[in-house]
Amino acid sequence: MSSGACAPYDLKCKECGKSYGKQPLSICDECFSPLEVFYDLDAVKGSVTRESIAAGPASIWRYRALLPIPEGFQPDLPVGFTPLVKAKNLGKRLGASDIYVKNDAVCFPTLSFKDRVVAVALANARYFGFDTVGASSTGNLANSVAAQAARLGLKSCILIPADLEPAKILNTLIYGARLVRIDGNYDHVNRLCSLIADQYNWGFVNVNLRPYYAEGSKTMGYEIAEQLGWRLPDNVVVPMAGGSLIRKIKKAFDELVYLGIVEAKHVKFFGAQATGCSPITHAVKNNLDRHEPQKPNTIARSLAIGNPADGPYAARLIRETGGWGEDVSDVEVVSGIQELAETEGIFTETAGGVTTAVTAKLFAQGRIGKDETTVVCITGNGLKTTDVLQGKYDVGRAVKPRLAEFDAYLRELDGLPAAEEAELVAQ
Amino acid sequence: MSSGACAPYDLKCKECGKSYGKQPLSICDECFSPLEVFYDLDAVKGSVTRESIAAGPASIWRYRALLPIPEGFQPDLPVGFTPLVKAKNLGKRLGASDIYVKNDAVCFPTLSFKDRVVAVALANARYFGFDTVGASSTGNLANSVAAQAARLGLKSCILIPADLEPAKILNTLIYGARLVRIDGNYDHVNRLCSLIADQYNWGFVNVNLRPYYAEGSKTMGYEIAEQLGWRLPDNVVVPMAGGSLIRKIKKAFDELVYLGIVEAKHVKFFGAQATGCSPITHAVKNNLDRHEPQKPNTIARSLAIGNPADGPYAARLIRETGGWGEDVSDVEVVSGIQELAETEGIFTETAGGVTTAVTAKLFAQGRIGKDETTVVCITGNGLKTTDVLQGKYDVGRAVKPRLAEFDAYLRELDGLPAAEEAELVAQ
Ligand SMILES: Cc1ncc(COP(=O)(O)O)c(C=O)c1O
Ligand SMILES: Cc1ncc(COP(=O)(O)O)c(C=O)c1O
Ligand SMILES: [Zn+2]
Ligand SMILES: [Zn+2]
Repeated sequence: MSSGACAPYDLKCKECGKSYGKQPLSICDECFSPLEVFYDLDAVKGSVTRESIAAGPASIWRYRALLPIPEGFQPDLPVGFTPLVKAKNLGKRLGASDIYVKNDAVCFPTLSFKDRVVAVALANARYFGFDTVGASSTGNLANSVAAQAARLGLKSCILIPADLEPAKILNTLIYGARLVRIDGNYDHVNRLCSLIADQYNWGFVNVNLRPYYAEGSKTMGYEIAEQLGWRLPDNVVVPMAGGSLIRKIKKAFDELVYLGIVEAKHVKFFGAQATGCSPITHAVKNNLDRHEPQKPNTIARSLAIGNPADGPYAARLIRETGGWGEDVSDVEVVSGIQELAETEGIFTETAGGVTTAVTAKLFAQGRIGKDETTVVCITGNGLKTTDVLQGKYDVGRAVKPRLAEFDAYLRELDGLPAAEEAELVAQ
Repeated sequence: MSSGACAPYDLKCKECGKSYGKQPLSICDECFSPLEVFYDLDAVKGSVTRESIAAGPASIWRYRALLPIPEGFQPDLPVGFTPLVKAKNLGKRLGASDIYVKNDAVCFPTLSFKDRVVAVALANARYFGFDTVGASSTGNLANSVAAQAARLGLKSCILIPADLEPAKILNTLIYGARLVRIDGNYDHVNRLCSLIADQYNWGFVNVNLRPYYAEGSKTMGYEIAEQLGWRLPDNVVVPMAGGSLIRKIKKAFDELVYLGIVEAKHVKFFGAQATGCSPITHAVKNNLDRHEPQKPNTIARSLAIGNPADGPYAARLIRETGGWGEDVSDVEVVSGIQELAETEGIFTETAGGVTTAVTAKLFAQGRIGKDETTVVCITGNGLKTTDVLQGKYDVGRAVKPRLAEFDAYLRELDGLPAAEEAELVAQ
């Protein structure tokens, strides 16, 4: 980016503060806490501005000054910068006057917010010299790593729970990635990946590259603020699996405030999960310091992480901002998908069904003010989880291409009596 | 748009020139030729500039001064402005040094270029006072009309050939649209829709609103020119069904030249079809004045129009620009999908498989110069036609979450002998 320098950054332990420079490492060797990227924001105060950002490309790379991007990195793919749309119809149903959908269901290249994190992770994978990258994934991450690795000419090997949706499996294999289905849930997969990363010296985006990877989610927060006309919303509703995205949206907002790019505002963070895998919302509701790991059982498989790495931090964030954690049943997930499609013409996957249904619940509970500005984060595309809609729609019979046949069929569809009967009734 | 006025426009007959003002009408009542939107470009010469366009939103509405948009229209949805990516890996395979993919597989809201035409059509549907809109569709149009109508609060009724892909059917029903599967091919469906449009006084986007609708495709051309840094490519490769998109990309380029926004350049237009439905490429190859209608038989169902409305114009355009029309078998369509995914990390539907495979064929034939700038138009998303990949990928067995099991499985995947055998061999 021509405009302005990038903020210097280093890895540090979130708990003991030990500094690690730039390394493919995610856990502190002193205290076993997670590492995180810390920036020297003062170095870019005044040079990173609304104008310098707006002068950048229509992608996450417009925010590169605030991302952990190796020197000399040339952005390759126009990831992100997805639409934020005002959701008037959904708002009407919920009684909300100022509600927005942030729509990563159309994120380039693989239709989920995971494209953001992968773009940042792979920039670092190349820098650290990995020739093979990997991930433990609940589906969307698999799609994104496979696609972006193909594009960058990196080999990939991706591990998933064996029972993922067929579309997510195909959408990984199609890019030529090696895919390994593990007989277990995400937590089994993730533990195995830690072993593999060491053994094979591969760059696992959400294991040894996790601190860099996670920063990519900040771009969703930057975009929300910019697309609201450089202001923060009152509330955001965010789906949670590992609990990383919600934290990084908060971090993005805080950075923008610190840099004087947006005005400070108290933003409430609301976390959404499926009841069948709700360790974080359970912790919020029960005011637990640490979540209790769960065995996931939900159709929202992209959110099915029973022991979320960032669970404790996410739960604390939600409570500290005065937000709330809420969860919904699988039946409500499907209704959420349908509601968003019918009101806003946006077809989201199960995770988005969770978020939409939780949003409705939060309004019904009065936890979100009706005239406040609320952003609902839709993070993935409905075409990836069509299996959960199986049998919900009647495709109808094939109709002969004649006007009279069409007329009759339309009356059927509209629940009207057949035309002849209708005349009799009218007499 | 703050910057500059819009070009005044009127409907006129393409053949006899009869003027029709602004009406929901697509056929000349004098000579039965198609009507088209004509602009007074001189009225905006100097006021529509690179700068005025760049100051607009990141969507097709940045070009609204050159679209048939009713006065006072407030753009609602951020459609289009999809990525143009340099395709180095694909280029390497084809021996092409400067090749780009225009990627409407991530178009907002429904992942195909049809979102562009529907946005313009529905702006006019509202203006003409229709409360119900419709379409005859090969799939993508159905998705887009259903989604955008839901968002705008318009009722919709969409007709399709009965045998479309399941994902395209679901992705229409999910928005609450009425969908009617017709026992016949697209040409049967289209004829029936003409009768319905009259009978019901509905706004059919590609029947009575067709002239407005078709102009939406110009935005793909504008974006290509802008994203190349305000210059025209040497070649474009465009998939053809009705033959409208290819013509409108040409029209867009011509307008930009006329307005002095890009330098004039001779651009060759290459049209792509599936051999199983190739009336236009057949006409090009055989130098016919008018194509011979075909009965479609191909997996590329979105392109399966046997008697394309704009067929003669498309064929003429291709010949006059010195381009070519080429077609590929269904087997090549699938390989095209795989090739684009493996090289560029872009998963496209059958139509994009057609375009990619045709592009390869054109390079192999020497019809496109290897160092020329070539843009390949990818118009739809692979998740909508996953059925054609059924059985092509082995998802593999579920592996126990243990390192040794993983090691063994990876050797299998990589076609290596099992570890013990490998040791024996090494001894
Ligand atoms: C579609 C979707 N939304 C949300 C999430 C949650 O993200 P996080 O793990 O950062 O909480 C995921 C994670 O896989 C996801 O796939
Ligand atoms: C994905 C896709 N690409 C290309 C086309 C061709 O467009 P046209 O009918 O304007 O030639 C269609 C038409 O339905 C389509 O669905
Ligand atoms: Zn520590
Ligand atoms: Zn005429």
